[in-house]
Parts: sequence; structure tokens; C-alpha cells
Amino acid sequence: MPIETLSTFKAHGGTQGVYRHASETTSTDMVFSAYVPPHEEGAKLPVLWYLSGLTCTHANVTEKGEFRAACAEQGVILIAPDTSPRGQDVADDDGYDFGQGAGFYVDATRDPWAGHFRMRSYIEQDLPALIAAEFPMADLDRQSITGHSMGGHGALTIGLRNPGRFRSISAFSPIVAPSQCPWGDKALGGYLGDDRAAWREYDACALIEDGARVSELLVDQGDGDQFLTEQLKPELLAEACKAAGIDLTLRMQPGYDHSYYFISTFLPDHVAWHAARLKG
Amino acid sequence: MPIETLSTFKAHGGTQGVYRHASETTSTDMVFSAYVPPHEEGAKLPVLWYLSGLTCTHANVTEKGEFRAACAEQGVILIAPDTSPRGQDVADDDGYDFGQGAGFYVDATRDPWAGHFRMRSYIEQDLPALIAAEFPMADLDRQSITGHSMGGHGALTIGLRNPGRFRSISAFSPIVAPSQCPWGDKALGGYLGDDRAAWREYDACALIEDGARVSELLVDQGDGDQFLTEQLKPELLAEACKAAGIDLTLRMQPGYDHSYYFISTFLPDHVAWHAARLKG
Repeated sequence: MPIETLSTFKAHGGTQGVYRHASETTSTDMVFSAYVPPHEEGAKLPVLWYLSGLTCTHANVTEKGEFRAACAEQGVILIAPDTSPRGQDVADDDGYDFGQGAGFYVDATRDPWAGHFRMRSYIEQDLPALIAAEFPMADLDRQSITGHSMGGHGALTIGLRNPGRFRSISAFSPIVAPSQCPWGDKALGGYLGDDRAAWREYDACALIEDGARVSELLVDQGDGDQFLTEQLKPELLAEACKAAGIDLTLRMQPGYDHSYYFISTFLPDHVAWHAARLKG
Repeated sequence: MPIETLSTFKAHGGTQGVYRHASETTSTDMVFSAYVPPHEEGAKLPVLWYLSGLTCTHANVTEKGEFRAACAEQGVILIAPDTSPRGQDVADDDGYDFGQGAGFYVDATRDPWAGHFRMRSYIEQDLPALIAAEFPMADLDRQSITGHSMGGHGALTIGLRNPGRFRSISAFSPIVAPSQCPWGDKALGGYLGDDRAAWREYDACALIEDGARVSELLVDQGDGDQFLTEQLKPELLAEACKAAGIDLTLRMQPGYDHSYYFISTFLPDHVAWHAARLKG
């Protein structure tokens, strides 16, 4: 698993890098970014995963997320993977919400997606192994996860399925119940087929209904978000958490929309919230 | 002077907007961004101008500058103009460092530039008048100015020519002596002609040599900047300030380059530095 450095920049005392590697999981080259804050030689730093939303790559949060000052202050590495496999040989769809740029953090089981679209395994296994091998300062015994929109769905579902791996889970404007919204219907139906039972491990609310448990969740959601009522439906997560006894902090942020202007306002907060749990 | 709102986003409690207006100075439509931090009804807020560098528009700093948290904390408006007039009817050049995107904050006197390329007057007169008319919370009795690279040159020269207008002046990686570097030779020669005496009011070091005085300047410069020795030459500004008795704080930042990863690391610092002088 060799890794290629595409760029590095000094920022907020640390190093913002972009890297490429050949993934055995997706059978494609994959690009991700990693911010490593300033640290003493030999120090081990906790890792916060940030999963991005529809149409995004690693670059959106890397350029617009405003997380580096907080990561430098807290001593937290932030890793931002891509949202799907990409390439001319990779299947795609004309919609912005399916295919390349829209991997939905699932392992697809239907053709033509099943070969490359394995973002669940990529995030759960492939990329962490690469990080452990290539970033010696990364302490993979201390991981947390967050994400935005489709990536919020990814953070919640990957976090709920792997409660021992993550100290804490948060999300921005997540798709909390893809089985109950048009984006999810299209993506889960397309990648997994019509058997909705197979969708449940990719649906945060269904996972909780089926017994997945974590102690707490933090969610920020703009009340001016254009996707709030049709796609995101945070009230479904609130109901599921209430029934399961999960301590959900759902902050409806007045006047904020779905953009990186919203994310960048609160991402430093999330970094500090995770850091408190990663260092506790 | 009507103004058209192209977009607004809530961010860090305030409003990040992008606006277009028909400029009588450049005889083109001009776009700029303004961040207005949260404030009480009727409050008057000081204004920090941020002038951008070669190839940039308002968008670079607006998306990547990481200034809004500091502006919200300090109660400072940040305005980011474009770097030149633009349009199909506006003269241009194949180089990235001349023509559209490279106005150099001069009033051009040579054809085909003289008609539209009047960025000095646009920044000194036209846009402040528009801001005064359209942003009632902006207190134009309290202004400061900063900028990056070509925009650092703009901030220094506009600031030095208008010491009564600006409470404070800072810059990132500025072109401190365009008369003594290839970028400046090309731009000032192209916009103003061969008479180098006419260049001096567009050269920070020459302005200081010719008697322009301010009490202090703040400059951040990455020592890993690829343009440091050929184009930027901060030592020339240090010499000019020393001879003139201007208190220059020149911070050579180790390992930083010319990018927005550098700017975004220190722009919050500059916001706070200006705010202390704007509120003093």
C-alpha cells in the first residue's frame, strides 16, 4: 500500500497534506487529505475522521472547513476521505446524487456498482490501515468521526456499527434515515437492490431501532437548510435516540443553511467536543 | 449606484454576502464580498479592507481566508473587492500577471487599459462611497486595510497615500517595491508607460522614500514563499521603514509559502491587530 504525496502546506503550525494511494478495496486510486497539527517528536495524536457530502471530494472541507486552528489547539489529526471511487473505468450516473461523488458509504452489492463502490470497507478498514502504516504519529486507539449530509449519514452509521472504535460521533445536517428520503431511496436501492432489509445497516435510525447503542451523539442542523424537511429529517433521529436512551444533543442553528459557511462556523466546536472525549 | 445581492450566507453569527454594482469608475460591473458580523441594531462597526493578489477575485479569501470567526469576535466588517475590471469588452493579456485579475491597484494611463483599469480610484473612492450608502452599519470613520501579494502592495500603497483614512495597515507577502521586480516592471510599465517617475506613487518603498509616513506597519511573510527573493523582497521595505522611522513589524514565518494556507493561519491575528487600533 504505497502512498503518494500530492501536496503539503504548512498551516496553523502543522501540515495540511493531500495524498493518493491504490486502494485494494475500491480497486481504484483514492485521494484523501490529512491535517497533522504541530506536535512534539514521538507524540501520538488522536484522529478525527470527516466524511463529506454529495458532490464533494476531500478538497471542500480542506479548503473551506476552518478546522485547522481548532485541530492545532487541540492536537487532533483530521482526515478527509473522498466520497466515492472515481475514474473512467468506474461506473457513474448522470445524477449528482448517485455514482461518482455519491458513494453513500456503502458496500454496493448490485452491478455495475459492486466492483468499485465499497466505501464502507474503505473507511472502516482500508484507509485506517493505511493511516496506521503511513502516519506514525496517528494514535488509532483514539478515533472519533464526524461528517456532513451524506457524510453525516456515513459518520452516524459507521460510528453506530463500530462503537468500540470511536470515542465519539457527531454530524452536520446528516441524512439520518436514508430509507425514508429520496436521496437514500435512490442510492440504497441502486447500490443494494430492492430488499429493504439490506438497507438497515446503512440507516442510522434503523441501526438504533435494531439495537445499535452509543452513549451520546452531537448533531448540528441549520433550520434554514433547503434539504431539512424532505431529505434530512433530524426529528427521526431524535425519536430513535429517545426510544433507545441515547443522549442526543441536536442543535437547531437558526438561519444557517446546508453550506460550508454553516459547517465552518461549528466545525471548530465539534473538534473541541471530540477532543474532550479523545483525551478523556 | 444600485447594488445587487448575488448571495448571502449566515456564518459565524453574521452575514457573508457577495454583491455586484455598476461602477462609474471602471465603467464595468464590479463584484465584491462583505462579511458583516453579528451586531446590535443601530450599531456602527469598523471596516477592514482586504485586497487580493494576482489571479484572485473576492472569492479566494471569502472561501479560504478563515477570517469570519475573528471578525465576529472583534465586531469588524471585512470587505474583499475584485482585483480588476472584467468582461468581454475589457482589455486583457495572456499572462496571469497582467490585465484582468491583475489590476495592480493603479489608475492606468496607457491604452488599451486607461478606460477601465482604474482600481486605485475604485478602491479609494468608488467602493467606499457605495459601502457608506448601502451598509448603514459600516463606520467609515474607522477603516483599516490589508491584502496579499499584489493586494499587499495595494494595501501598503493605498494606505501610505491616505494615512488619514486608515487607522492601521498590514500586509501578507506584499510586493513592497514593484519598481524593482518583474511583476511590477511588467504591470507598471504596461499600465503607466516607461516614465518611472510616474510609478513611484504605486511603490510602497518609493512612497516612503518620497516622504509618506505612517506610525507603524505589520507584515507577515513566509520564508518558504517561492516568490520571496525575486518578487517580494521584504528587506527593501525594512530598509525604507528604518530610514523613515516607521515602526515595521516584519514577521518572517518559518516554513510558510504564498498560499491561503499561510494567509488563513495569520489573518485572524491581523483582524485582532487592526481591531485593537480601530477601537482604540
